[in-house]
Amino acid sequence: MLKSEEHFLEIINDVFPNAHPHMLVGRGDDCAVLACPRKLCLSSDLFLENVHFRLSYFKAEDVGYKALAVNLSDLAAHGARPLGFNLNLVWPSYLDAGFCRCMLEGMAEIAGQFNLALTGGDLSLGNCLGLGITIWGQSPEKYLLRESCLPGDVLFVAGEVGLARCGLMLLEENCRHMNQYPLSLAAHLRPVPLILEGQVLAGQEAVKGCMDVSDGLARDLPRFLSRGTGVEIDPAFAVHPEVAGYCRVMKVDPIVFSLLGGEDYALLGGCAEDDWPMVQSRVSSAWKLGRVVARERVFLDGNRVFLKGFDHFEL
Amino acid sequence: MLKSEEHFLEIINDVFPNAHPHMLVGRGDDCAVLACPRKLCLSSDLFLENVHFRLSYFKAEDVGYKALAVNLSDLAAHGARPLGFNLNLVWPSYLDAGFCRCMLEGMAEIAGQFNLALTGGDLSLGNCLGLGITIWGQSPEKYLLRESCLPGDVLFVAGEVGLARCGLMLLEENCRHMNQYPLSLAAHLRPVPLILEGQVLAGQEAVKGCMDVSDGLARDLPRFLSRGTGVEIDPAFAVHPEVAGYCRVMKVDPIVFSLLGGEDYALLGGCAEDDWPMVQSRVSSAWKLGRVVARERVFLDGNRVFLKGFDHFEL
Repeated sequence: MLKSEEHFLEIINDVFPNAHPHMLVGRGDDCAVLACPRKLCLSSDLFLENVHFRLSYFKAEDVGYKALAVNLSDLAAHGARPLGFNLNLVWPSYLDAGFCRCMLEGMAEIAGQFNLALTGGDLSLGNCLGLGITIWGQSPEKYLLRESCLPGDVLFVAGEVGLARCGLMLLEENCRHMNQYPLSLAAHLRPVPLILEGQVLAGQEAVKGCMDVSDGLARDLPRFLSRGTGVEIDPAFAVHPEVAGYCRVMKVDPIVFSLLGGEDYALLGGCAEDDWPMVQSRVSSAWKLGRVVARERVFLDGNRVFLKGFDHFEL
Repeated sequence: MLKSEEHFLEIINDVFPNAHPHMLVGRGDDCAVLACPRKLCLSSDLFLENVHFRLSYFKAEDVGYKALAVNLSDLAAHGARPLGFNLNLVWPSYLDAGFCRCMLEGMAEIAGQFNLALTGGDLSLGNCLGLGITIWGQSPEKYLLRESCLPGDVLFVAGEVGLARCGLMLLEENCRHMNQYPLSLAAHLRPVPLILEGQVLAGQEAVKGCMDVSDGLARDLPRFLSRGTGVEIDPAFAVHPEVAGYCRVMKVDPIVFSLLGGEDYALLGGCAEDDWPMVQSRVSSAWKLGRVVARERVFLDGNRVFLKGFDHFEL
């Protein structure tokens, strides 16, 4: 049991150093004072028990890790250099101080990988565990925005799609054969934010835009494309072997499954067709998703693919 | 009923302009890109239904207003110039689109007063209404920190203490005589962040430190004072007339009641005794709380006052 707010702050101060070149004034005052670059990328994400994760299969460390990882992915989509974050934490009475420490250690693990400062936050009791993170980083000179691609451009993806969806389904079903899908489970429990890839993309003049694929391509593609454009999926679309295996067992279309995805935290980008070989050579994990076409919707072999993406309010 | 995430975003975009000198890239991308001063003050606060407010006596507009006001108060305590904020919103299915619009309009009212940009956030379904705000502003050159006062210094307060506690109690009791306490109700429902006062204090060389009194003086005084110091309350401590009236009816000590307070969002500061008249002349709402003494705890007429402050985990 967490005995008091002070007890919680003790654990935070044990796990997260309260000194960092980015913090002129650190935690423990009304505000942190930050040494800032001229342009800051800033984003917020919620990570809520029974909405975004379940404690039946998330270890405390994974909760802390993933809450920060999904926020880092937003910075990755802008090619930003991560600097710091604030944590708003809603704490239920059924979790103890040990859980709190492990959760923060999982968060500190990924914060350490990207040299992120925890600069403050707030704490309250509540019915379920909830984490709200606001994260920021130095913006590159070039902005990687949405709706920048034209018909004929190549759409590419860095990272995997469908793998986290596969992991989620295996975990939700408590599948007996789970251990045959290690990468799927990891993709759901411990997504890797593609910070380096985003920075490399932002450094390429040829790259027209970028976004992080958090709600699945089916839902995120229309957000990335301009009105009146769609995508013809590349015939060589390579489904991840674990996804292919799972879809075979479940008798579902592996490409549709991959496009539905969700929580992929891959990066979706675009460039002119002529620039694609160069872009691919710079970001080895990038693969060609397809080509922008002058008709809305998603097409495969010339036929429209029927897809419905993820919306928290339509579940 | 909010039909979809898009429906929510429509309302947000109706109520909050998506253009501001501070936003180089606005809402609707993975990150906002902000034009930043060299030093940024940044803070986060939670505002949760049934923890921080009840819908039985908070109108939608008041929820939106207060969620942002309490965040602004943290900037006030540093004398910062408000710039922008992000909103993480947890939305329960029992609230409709009309509530959402009114809530955001209440928030936009106070955002407009301080020319704040809403730069982004996140949205999720949940069991209760919850707002998590991260706010930032330009830091003054001088930092108004805690633990800067020495024995002999004057402690002063800008704003009222005890009034919001009085308002909370009247509202919780659903008191029949509520209309006799208009300022108390307003102090609880619509606290006024002392942004201008904070900026004036930060501009005074003589001011040694400042914090916002959010958990009541009883709890916040020890956080403001250095270890080994306490406060002798000024014999002229003037209880607010509404608080005095309420305490008379309730037969409780009005000074203890005021010191317990809670959600006062007053500013607590300190300066050398010689500088006090000058500080007071610059901030007309400032009044003398007492004098720092070289013994921990709070004293009144030479006797220790027994106080227990507010802790979310001790309730």
